[in-house]
Amino acid sequence: MTSAAPLVPFASATADQATVHIDLGERSYPIRIAAGLLGDAATYAALPKAASALIVTNTTVAPLYLQQVRAALAGRYPQVHVVELPDGEAYKDWQTLNLIFDALLQHGCDRKTVLFALGGGVIGDMTGFAAASYMRGVPFVQLPTTLLSQVDSSVGGKTAINHPLGKNMVGAFYQPQLVVCDLASLDSLPPRELSAGLAEVIKYGPIADMAFFEWLELHIDRLRAGDRTAMAQAVKRSVEIKAWVVSQDEKETGLRAVLNFGHTFGHAIEAGMGYGNWLHGEGVGAGMVMAAHLSQELGMVDAAFVARLTRLIERAGLPTRGAVLDAQDNAGAYLEHMRVDKKAEAGEIRFVLIDGPGKATMRGAPDALVRQVIDRCCAPA
Amino acid sequence: MTSAAPLVPFASATADQATVHIDLGERSYPIRIAAGLLGDAATYAALPKAASALIVTNTTVAPLYLQQVRAALAGRYPQVHVVELPDGEAYKDWQTLNLIFDALLQHGCDRKTVLFALGGGVIGDMTGFAAASYMRGVPFVQLPTTLLSQVDSSVGGKTAINHPLGKNMVGAFYQPQLVVCDLASLDSLPPRELSAGLAEVIKYGPIADMAFFEWLELHIDRLRAGDRTAMAQAVKRSVEIKAWVVSQDEKETGLRAVLNFGHTFGHAIEAGMGYGNWLHGEGVGAGMVMAAHLSQELGMVDAAFVARLTRLIERAGLPTRGAVLDAQDNAGAYLEHMRVDKKAEAGEIRFVLIDGPGKATMRGAPDALVRQVIDRCCAPA
Repeated sequence: MTSAAPLVPFASATADQATVHIDLGERSYPIRIAAGLLGDAATYAALPKAASALIVTNTTVAPLYLQQVRAALAGRYPQVHVVELPDGEAYKDWQTLNLIFDALLQHGCDRKTVLFALGGGVIGDMTGFAAASYMRGVPFVQLPTTLLSQVDSSVGGKTAINHPLGKNMVGAFYQPQLVVCDLASLDSLPPRELSAGLAEVIKYGPIADMAFFEWLELHIDRLRAGDRTAMAQAVKRSVEIKAWVVSQDEKETGLRAVLNFGHTFGHAIEAGMGYGNWLHGEGVGAGMVMAAHLSQELGMVDAAFVARLTRLIERAGLPTRGAVLDAQDNAGAYLEHMRVDKKAEAGEIRFVLIDGPGKATMRGAPDALVRQVIDRCCAPA
Repeated sequence: MTSAAPLVPFASATADQATVHIDLGERSYPIRIAAGLLGDAATYAALPKAASALIVTNTTVAPLYLQQVRAALAGRYPQVHVVELPDGEAYKDWQTLNLIFDALLQHGCDRKTVLFALGGGVIGDMTGFAAASYMRGVPFVQLPTTLLSQVDSSVGGKTAINHPLGKNMVGAFYQPQLVVCDLASLDSLPPRELSAGLAEVIKYGPIADMAFFEWLELHIDRLRAGDRTAMAQAVKRSVEIKAWVVSQDEKETGLRAVLNFGHTFGHAIEAGMGYGNWLHGEGVGAGMVMAAHLSQELGMVDAAFVARLTRLIERAGLPTRGAVLDAQDNAGAYLEHMRVDKKAEAGEIRFVLIDGPGKATMRGAPDALVRQVIDRCCAPA
């Protein structure tokens, strides 16, 4: 098999801890990766001072990590407030976002108040959008506690809430001051969520770095078992690739869209099944298989590559077949959801496809071909 | 009387039309000022192309200008959609904002869709925030049809909605592509709204340019009568000063806050009386008088200046005395509202005060002194 040269130079990443820098001029910030960071006051030593901080978390994460984070922040911020949101993608809406604004105003928080997003991708996206919007912008910090949010959503400044008619339709590009990936928090992750996070790890291979993909093929079982050294390396390499791509194209006018490999089909599954029934990473898992098949139909990769990708996704514990959204016209249901994707232009769906292993590209595809791929890739097997 | 040198060089502004440029690097844009611009297709000739445009307006403005704007845009955008919101500050909330997102998604609008804010400050603030947030940012254009929005809110990229606990608490700094001040649209303005707009014109004198203030003293009657030539000059000079200040400090880390002269007291009146009962400009009118008295108490201006400012505000048809928000503890009610002002820090209210005519400064003041000023400045006379 021929692979494209890796998009990002492959740094040696054998240590269990690391700091990756995201280079965005005056909006640059570090991403720290190690075990035990959350409860260590030193983690927060370089943050801006303020009279108050607000930790935003959810009812699942709070019992696990809130106390240690609160204690670590107490020395730096005279007042540390907390708001606990209900857990789940179904709550990534305006009503729940407004609970953050309520708390900020009730506690008299000002323009210098620092927000801390303690939780997974939903908490990070909502807290980030709240920080972008409260008094037109206050500082915030990402404390991602899931694999998915550590390797993807916490890095790069995409924040949003869902609208009933589309996922992440209302939001902002707004960069945090710091991202803290505490590897110890992954120990508490249920296997299903660990697998969902692996979907976003795996995606970096086909789009950017087949050497990393080969490494994942060798280490996927250790990763599923929660091996700390393997996890450190997977998180670091994922974050390196993401940071590099975001540094090139912060606001997704071009290149950055390749990070959405598998997401166009995946979002259709998530929306079509009702948010929260399929985890985001599960949608991305099946979505990558579908996008790979579409790439093959367009002559950009061979069947061996599609099989190899499908096999790794399966070994990660992820679905490799799409859901049936409509028994009558399943492909039609997918197409309808995909036309409201943010990458669509004038109604034309733009897919992230693989143009040879290790290299992604964006393009449209004839509806008939897309329908054929959907029919082939959706359950039952 | 000694005046500070004007903050912004006083350009000759005798023509009935002008273009003022706001200099913000790659976010720079022109502000066009003339009669008859709204319905002229040439006004929009330099805007980005897109498959669709969405005009956001309200039920009061739509019958007056919607048809001509729609016709002028039809040649440039294959699809021109419209959403009509209810009119008034009371609707500057999330529920109404969401009507814009609903329309954008229902019409399949994409990342290139251009939003047009056709109306006063509420429409401009909400449309701007919708543009900042839809798909994390789409282009937008301000078409202000009130004096207040032409001379103040449409210029400079402040967008927001209100929260039950505070005005403009949720929003973004997000610059438009173009601002179009059609002087003809001021002909239809009710006298009360014209006066409210004059409050924001008058404020530029004490904070930045006493020569302009003197000009206003000479022309205030003509302005109230809607004299086109006087109006052109007032709008142009106001916009020049605002554009210069915003160019220096886009995100209000310092200087820009001087534009809020009169607004700290004014917002307290607006909020305390219930949004929409006092017009924003009316609150600013009385608020400037209160801020002038506080400046005098602190030894920064003399009684003659306060009287002169009060007289011009009165001649503009504006209230010069604050409302009674609470018969028991009126000053306490003001202070409570003012502590949630965005300029407050760690609970300390920061006032924009006049440090000699033509020069503004920001500072705190002892509660006892502020209470004294409130007691003296609130009705009954």
